Parts: sequence; C-alpha cells; structure tokens
Amino acid sequence: MSQFADVTVLKQANVYFEGKVTSRKIVFPDGSFKTLGIMLPGEYEFGTDAAEVMEIMQGTLKVLLPGAEWRTVTAGESFDVPAGIRFKLVVETLVDYCCSYIR
Amino acid sequence: MSQFADVTVLKQANVYFEGKVTSRKIVFPDGSFKTLGIMLPGEYEFGTDAAEVMEIMQGTLKVLLPGAEWRTVTAGESFDVPAGIRFKLVVETLVDYCCSYIR
Repeated sequence: MSQFADVTVLKQANVYFEGKVTSRKIVFPDGSFKTLGIMLPGEYEFGTDAAEVMEIMQGTLKVLLPGAEWRTVTAGESFDVPAGIRFKLVVETLVDYCCSYIR
Repeated sequence: MSQFADVTVLKQANVYFEGKVTSRKIVFPDGSFKTLGIMLPGEYEFGTDAAEVMEIMQGTLKVLLPGAEWRTVTAGESFDVPAGIRFKLVVETLVDYCCSYIR
C-alpha cells in the first residue's frame, strides 16, 4: 500500500535525538495509529509501550532486540518489536519507515 | 488547526539535501495538497512550481525571496512564496513546517 486514505494526520512532528529521528502520527478511522518517520544515520536506543511493527521503506539499519543478535533490516523488510522493552538501532543509510502500533 | 482529518497520506517520504530536508505529502478531498516537513539547520536553495504558503510550526529560519531582503520567520509565522521562482533559506534551529500549494 503506497498511501493511507481517510486518515487524520497530526500537524506537529515528533522530534527525537535533536531531529535525527522525526515522525508524524496518522490515526485511522478505527482509532488505531501509525507513525511515518525518518531516521538519519546514527546509533539510537528506543523504548516501547505497545508492541510495534517497523516497516522499512527506504534505507538500511541494524536492530538489537532483547535476547537476540544484531540483525540487518533493509528496504522492503519489517521487524516486530515487543511491548515494554528497550532496543538498539544502528541506522546505516537514511531510513524512511512506517511504525504500526499493535493494540 | 492541530490536525488534518479525512486526508490521504503518501507513505513514502520526500528526501532532499541528503535527508536534511524531508517531507510527506497529504492530499485533501478537494484534490489540493500540502506537505508536512522537517528542515535541519543548514543553508538551502529551493525552486517553486506552484505558489506556496510556508507555515512554520517550530524553529527559526531566514528566507531570501527575489527582490526582497533577508527576513527572519519563526514558530507561529508564515511566508508566501510566488510560483516559478528560486529562493534561499537559512535554517537556524530545526524547523517543523506545513507547506500549502496554491492552485
């Protein structure tokens, strides 16, 4: 799916790591939401509340989830992130992503 | 207005200047569109096709339009950009913007 129709977009961006990671929230008619974001090259640590599916539309990163090994994820691939954990990313080339929050 | 309802969002970002400027296109039911974007600090030159209204939600920049002097624009302010011109921006602190394209 190359676009999301009938959604609400929050006007203000989310800005993390001095702008090296930014995203915008889109809300679907059923109340579920996703963020569309950009990560510039760098090393980041994030925490989750809800479980997430991270889909990478552009770029390459390495992800380290608890209890797993570093794994490379590239354009066209996704990875699951459990709820309530912390995880590490190394973004190698600019990443354009879509993060779906699982309820 | 803090959000846009009943819109279509293109999933893939627009990426310029090696990711220092990124934006996402949102399309309204009447076919008009806007982009929501982030500009990191730096100096940029852009060209327009359509006329634009640039609204700055966060940050500070200086803009140089043809025939005008450098002007500082900050959060909560907007500036108009004519169609078919080139103009310069100096982004001083991370800018979160909404660009409306005038038909």
